Amino acid sequence: MTIRVAIAGARGKMGKEAVHTVMNNPEMELVSALDYKEIGRTLADTHLFPANFTVPIFTNLEELYSETAPDVFVDLTTPEFVYEHTKNALELNIRPVIGTTGFSDEQLDELKVLSKNKKIGCIIAPNFALGAILMMKFAEQAANYLPDIEIIEMHHDQKKDAPSGTALKTAHLISQNRTIHPQGHAGEKEVLEGARGANYDGMRIHSVRLPGLVAHQQVLLGGEGQLLTLRHDSFNRGSFMSGIVLSIKTVMEKEELIYGLEHIID
Amino acid sequence: MTIRVAIAGARGKMGKEAVHTVMNNPEMELVSALDYKEIGRTLADTHLFPANFTVPIFTNLEELYSETAPDVFVDLTTPEFVYEHTKNALELNIRPVIGTTGFSDEQLDELKVLSKNKKIGCIIAPNFALGAILMMKFAEQAANYLPDIEIIEMHHDQKKDAPSGTALKTAHLISQNRTIHPQGHAGEKEVLEGARGANYDGMRIHSVRLPGLVAHQQVLLGGEGQLLTLRHDSFNRGSFMSGIVLSIKTVMEKEELIYGLEHIID
Amino acid sequence: MTIRVAIAGARGKMGKEAVHTVMNNPEMELVSALDYKEIGRTLADTHLFPANFTVPIFTNLEELYSETAPDVFVDLTTPEFVYEHTKNALELNIRPVIGTTGFSDEQLDELKVLSKNKKIGCIIAPNFALGAILMMKFAEQAANYLPDIEIIEMHHDQKKDAPSGTALKTAHLISQNRTIHPQGHAGEKEVLEGARGANYDGMRIHSVRLPGLVAHQQVLLGGEGQLLTLRHDSFNRGSFMSGIVLSIKTVMEKEELIYGLEHIID
Amino acid sequence: MTIRVAIAGARGKMGKEAVHTVMNNPEMELVSALDYKEIGRTLADTHLFPANFTVPIFTNLEELYSETAPDVFVDLTTPEFVYEHTKNALELNIRPVIGTTGFSDEQLDELKVLSKNKKIGCIIAPNFALGAILMMKFAEQAANYLPDIEIIEMHHDQKKDAPSGTALKTAHLISQNRTIHPQGHAGEKEVLEGARGANYDGMRIHSVRLPGLVAHQQVLLGGEGQLLTLRHDSFNRGSFMSGIVLSIKTVMEKEELIYGLEHIID
Repeated sequence: MTIRVAIAGARGKMGKEAVHTVMNNPEMELVSALDYKEIGRTLADTHLFPANFTVPIFTNLEELYSETAPDVFVDLTTPEFVYEHTKNALELNIRPVIGTTGFSDEQLDELKVLSKNKKIGCIIAPNFALGAILMMKFAEQAANYLPDIEIIEMHHDQKKDAPSGTALKTAHLISQNRTIHPQGHAGEKEVLEGARGANYDGMRIHSVRLPGLVAHQQVLLGGEGQLLTLRHDSFNRGSFMSGIVLSIKTVMEKEELIYGLEHIID
Repeated sequence: MTIRVAIAGARGKMGKEAVHTVMNNPEMELVSALDYKEIGRTLADTHLFPANFTVPIFTNLEELYSETAPDVFVDLTTPEFVYEHTKNALELNIRPVIGTTGFSDEQLDELKVLSKNKKIGCIIAPNFALGAILMMKFAEQAANYLPDIEIIEMHHDQKKDAPSGTALKTAHLISQNRTIHPQGHAGEKEVLEGARGANYDGMRIHSVRLPGLVAHQQVLLGGEGQLLTLRHDSFNRGSFMSGIVLSIKTVMEKEELIYGLEHIID
Repeated sequence: MTIRVAIAGARGKMGKEAVHTVMNNPEMELVSALDYKEIGRTLADTHLFPANFTVPIFTNLEELYSETAPDVFVDLTTPEFVYEHTKNALELNIRPVIGTTGFSDEQLDELKVLSKNKKIGCIIAPNFALGAILMMKFAEQAANYLPDIEIIEMHHDQKKDAPSGTALKTAHLISQNRTIHPQGHAGEKEVLEGARGANYDGMRIHSVRLPGLVAHQQVLLGGEGQLLTLRHDSFNRGSFMSGIVLSIKTVMEKEELIYGLEHIID
Repeated sequence: MTIRVAIAGARGKMGKEAVHTVMNNPEMELVSALDYKEIGRTLADTHLFPANFTVPIFTNLEELYSETAPDVFVDLTTPEFVYEHTKNALELNIRPVIGTTGFSDEQLDELKVLSKNKKIGCIIAPNFALGAILMMKFAEQAANYLPDIEIIEMHHDQKKDAPSGTALKTAHLISQNRTIHPQGHAGEKEVLEGARGANYDGMRIHSVRLPGLVAHQQVLLGGEGQLLTLRHDSFNRGSFMSGIVLSIKTVMEKEELIYGLEHIID
């Protein structure tokens, strides 16, 4: 049975790729798109997609639902719209797959209840790159056996924040499985300030910024005589597509809200 | 409560390290050593260990047991002795921790039954390097999501076999979770024979041999726009010690035979 | 003084990037484009470039020269056109910068003589990625001191040939500085055929092909107790632009033909 | 012709390896050893070497010279002895190969003059690992073309100083070829202090410390669409032996003092 998919945010960078991904997936059908303003009757009309992408565009979710009856609603828009979209989709019995992080704790709690009451799945994923999710999951597990850990994340030099969100999330996940302990030599000293990186519960995080780089992270776990390295390289936006596909399939089988792809990977 | 440990193979390279490891571990006590010939009254007498390593040496396991009552028997000898040792240890109610691969299927089955009947643990581990075990386990899991995989193993140039046993084992584990599928371009051709490496169910394995290298392996899992790399570096024999310590602790809590450390890691 | 640049192949993938690169470089001016057919009066007319890219397009090199007087002629077209273009440019006293490999030895010899007689530079570069050129050059130098070498090249799985041209060129350069010697253990045996990779004068080359990968190569040089790794990652076509810029500047100062960027790097 | 070698510091860790290296090299002969105290008549007497290592030990360099006439004097002792040794060796027309850094500028100047007057070579090398020297040399060269650079050095967690001496030396060499320029985004901010590492003229240096690691460094040079990585792994003290052998051979052909192996590598 083909999964009927609707999408919001089709004109964004991620959205455009997602449209192609769903269109090319034989197990899915892209039945409609949601936009906040009038931009044409179909995706083809926007000139952003091939002429045969005659998927209808709606500006109202209820109308979209009554005319195209999607099973899943993929939302790749910005935080300001996403909460309303998710809530409305659940109320209409459409399963949301959401790729953003802009929910308050109260909003998440409300959506969890709604998802459970409706007995339909809802997946919210701050990160759709399956490889990155696996790296984090493995780091968390491995920390039980090799608790001395440093993280090196490497990004293009247009990135402003250091460390990256993924590095901080990785450190946070690891710290749940690891007693806080200072690493390195007790009498360690920095000849040049900052050399030992940022300190997260004793773990060190290092942020490299260079032109040419895209988005890369390695987690290094050292033990007597050995080193385990978990590395993820994201070369382009395509890295998120496998996670979107997996989410669309998985949300069909769930009856509750799941936050983070790590919970649908085993 | 301190775990009382006996060791066989104390004079070997691995054995020597294991003696130091157990001696330095506050949760364990090295109570005796087993040797196949008379080499002195204590480990200190062999001049291979410090003068205060006055651990008694026996040439008979029953005598060793009646005089020193070990909880665990660590065997780091060669395949020719190890089956007898394991069987005898189990019969004496000592929990074996065995670091070799030289068992026939019949012998393994017999030991499994014996372990179950005696209701005591027995751990047989072809590889004690926890990092390598984790790499294999993670590769197996990740193959569900990123099924295009190649393995690069790198060793010193005195190694004769290619690929390494660990690479073959990794490929075997992965292949259990992956439908056989050819990788690379359908029209791929080798301008220079062998460039694409060895073919294991479609996965490619590459063996690098260079002076200076020790024992290293990386598993590369590619997906659209991304690469996940799981790498293990073994720099020296010390890499096995964390696995021996974990095995000694774990064997105390088990009531059956476990083959491979991957089954005591979760 | 601004360098006046003309370009052939502006509509191709590489050409499009080169147009932007020259337009954005304050030391250069893009004065004209050459095309083999009528495609519009200016680059802007092709709808492949912004409206302010009003660079005139010609279908005849002599006319292009008499109207726009370029100092340098960058050719990013295919081998079938490139020999004529280069010869004609030299005869018109325009310095060619050529990014292709399709010359016969006779053609190259002829162009060398022509360049010398005209006393103007001509740069022909099969590879404009400066990082890759540096990697090859360093590998060649380092082979004097660490002569045990293996090459691992990694590309997306749509690539047909293995090993890559860059890997073969690297091996060729190294082999000029290294006496042929077999590597690995004398009694080495492949349990699985192909594991040790392709054999180039004793050096081993390994070709990895995975979805997600772009174009990557590492040269591993092993010695007692140590490993030197030279690695180049090409993430996108932008990697060629620094080489094109360097070539345009350098060709202005030369009075002969140079084949390969390695000869303008010191 | 065999090179006659004398050694000081034979009982140290480096010295012991050097003794074996010279003994096993067919182009060299170990003719004598210098020690600061009476420790036996020959190296064999110390029980640190095999019984057939009957190389005579002296406590006085003049006596050593008159009895064994070495061509080269290898000194692997500590800074406190090394200046006197070097000066005395030069005065006796023995070519020094020195593996330490404990010279004042005045002492170096004096030894340079002495070496030149005597017209014999003298090599002083703070680092004998050829691979590390090559990495530094290549980094310096590559900085001309890819001036955005970060350094990651990784050592065992018993190391106290961060960054390592090699990282600082690499940064210093690069800075000679590079105009100071800040890297990363102008509006960059550290969410966690220290994430961006130490700042050396705009270059960032990151120091990783983990159990299991030995001594590793990578220099990352980023450019549009590409990354060049120069990496050196030192797995054990053996990495220094190729540099000692090269120095012994090279010092025979020089007529002046050379400081740093980078000056004998081309």
